[in-house]
Amino acid sequence: MITLYDNKSTLPLSHPYCGYSPYVWRIRFALRFKGLAYRTHWLEYPDVETIAKSIGAPPTGKRPNGTVRYTIPIIHDSVTNKVISGSFDIIEYLDATYPDTVQLIPKETRLLQKVFEEAEPGLIIRHLIPVVGSRLHKSPLITPRNQEFMNSEAGRASYPPPVVYSEEQEKEAWEKFKNSALGDMAKQMLDSEEAPFVMGKKVSMADAVLFGRFACLRLLWDESTKEWKEMMSWHGGRWGRLFEAYESLPQVEKYDG
Amino acid sequence: MITLYDNKSTLPLSHPYCGYSPYVWRIRFALRFKGLAYRTHWLEYPDVETIAKSIGAPPTGKRPNGTVRYTIPIIHDSVTNKVISGSFDIIEYLDATYPDTVQLIPKETRLLQKVFEEAEPGLIIRHLIPVVGSRLHKSPLITPRNQEFMNSEAGRASYPPPVVYSEEQEKEAWEKFKNSALGDMAKQMLDSEEAPFVMGKKVSMADAVLFGRFACLRLLWDESTKEWKEMMSWHGGRWGRLFEAYESLPQVEKYDG
Repeated sequence: MITLYDNKSTLPLSHPYCGYSPYVWRIRFALRFKGLAYRTHWLEYPDVETIAKSIGAPPTGKRPNGTVRYTIPIIHDSVTNKVISGSFDIIEYLDATYPDTVQLIPKETRLLQKVFEEAEPGLIIRHLIPVVGSRLHKSPLITPRNQEFMNSEAGRASYPPPVVYSEEQEKEAWEKFKNSALGDMAKQMLDSEEAPFVMGKKVSMADAVLFGRFACLRLLWDESTKEWKEMMSWHGGRWGRLFEAYESLPQVEKYDG
Repeated sequence: MITLYDNKSTLPLSHPYCGYSPYVWRIRFALRFKGLAYRTHWLEYPDVETIAKSIGAPPTGKRPNGTVRYTIPIIHDSVTNKVISGSFDIIEYLDATYPDTVQLIPKETRLLQKVFEEAEPGLIIRHLIPVVGSRLHKSPLITPRNQEFMNSEAGRASYPPPVVYSEEQEKEAWEKFKNSALGDMAKQMLDSEEAPFVMGKKVSMADAVLFGRFACLRLLWDESTKEWKEMMSWHGGRWGRLFEAYESLPQVEKYDG
C-alpha cells in the first residue's frame, strides 16, 4: 500500500478535503486516476523535515540561505519499499512502477509537462496571491501549530507574511484570475464537453497541476459558496468538468479504524 | 507563394543564414518541414512598423509605455491573401491552411506548446544574455542602420544596451548555458538518436522554438568555430541532430533574379 504524507487542516482527518497542499493534491489526483489505494500520514509543517529524514526522503530544493529543504508530497510504497519526494518525481515513479495504470507523463510530452509544471507559478499563483494570500494566513482551517510555524522565523522564509489587499484590489484580482490566468489557458484548449483535459481526451500531469491548485481553493471557498460555484462554471464549465472527471472515479483513499 | 518578412544582416541576401531573428527562424523551420515555398522580404528594424501597417499586419504586443508594438515574423500568403504576425499564430495558421503538411501544433498539445514558447526566455535567453549580449551588439553582422536604431531612444526600449561581462563571467555563463539551460532540458527528452525532437519522433512547435534560438547563435559563431561544433556535440549530439533533421529536407526558400 502507498502512504502519502500530507499537511493537515483543522477538518476531521477523515474529511475528504482535509489536506490543503496543492502539491499533495496532484498526487491524490494521480492515485485516483490510476486506481491505486493509499493511506494518508498526516503531519504539520514543523514535522516535515524530521519525518522526511527519518524515512529517507530526499530534499527537493534549497532555501535562499543554501541549506536543503524538505517538502511534501512524499510517498512511501510498501510494495517496492521506495520513498519518493516531489510531485513530478512521484508521478513519474508511479507511471514507471505501475505501467498498466493511466500514464500521466507520456515520455513524448515529458519536457512539455515539466515546463508546464514549472511555469505554474507565473500562470496561476501570481494571479492568486492578491485573492487568497491574506485569506489563507488567517483561515481557521490552519491548525494552531501550523499558524505558529508560518509566523516563526523559519516559517516566514518559506511562507512570507501576506500583503493585505483592499476589497477593491481583491475584486480586481479575482477578475484577472478568471480572465487572464484561467481564461488565456482555456482559449488554448479543446472544447471541454468533448475533451475535458489539457491534452483533450488524455489526462496528464498538467491536469494534476491545475486540479491541485483548485482543490486547495476548495478548502478556502467550500463547495457551497458563490465563489466556488462561479469558478466551476467559468469557461464553459471546464474546471467543473475536471472535478467531475475526478469525482466520478472510485475513491481509493483508505481510512484507519 | 508565402512572403516572409525578416531582418537582414550584412551577409549577402542570398546567404542562407542572412536573417538573425530567432523568431523568424521558427517560421523558416516550419516552412521547410512543411515543404511550403517562400520568398523573403528583407527589412531593417526601423521599417518594421511602417511595413506592418502598410500590409495590414496586426501588432503583437505593447511597449512599456502602452503603445502597440509591431514585430517580425510577419507572413503574407498570396494564396489566401492573408497577413499574419507572431510566430505562434503564423505556425497555427500554416497548420490550419495546409492541413496535409506536418502539423506543428497538434491540438492536444496546444496549451503545452504555448506555455513552452512563453517559458523560453526563462529557460534559455536568461542564460544566453551574458554570453551573447555584448557580442551581438558589436557584431559586424548588424547593418549600420540597425546599429543606429538599436542605439536610438526608440530602439533602446526594445533592445536595452548590453551589460558588459568579463571573460570569466562569459565562461561561467557558457557552462551554465550548457549544463543548466540545455542540459536540464535534454534530461527530460528521449534519446535523440532514435527521437531527435522534443516530442520524440514527432516534430513540433517546441523544436521550432529551440531551433530558432540556435540558428541565431549560428550567425554569431559560424559553423567553422570551436564553439558551434561544441554546441552541436553537447548532450549526445542532440542539437546537432536537430540541425541535421532540418538540413536533410529540401530547401524551400526561393531567390529572386
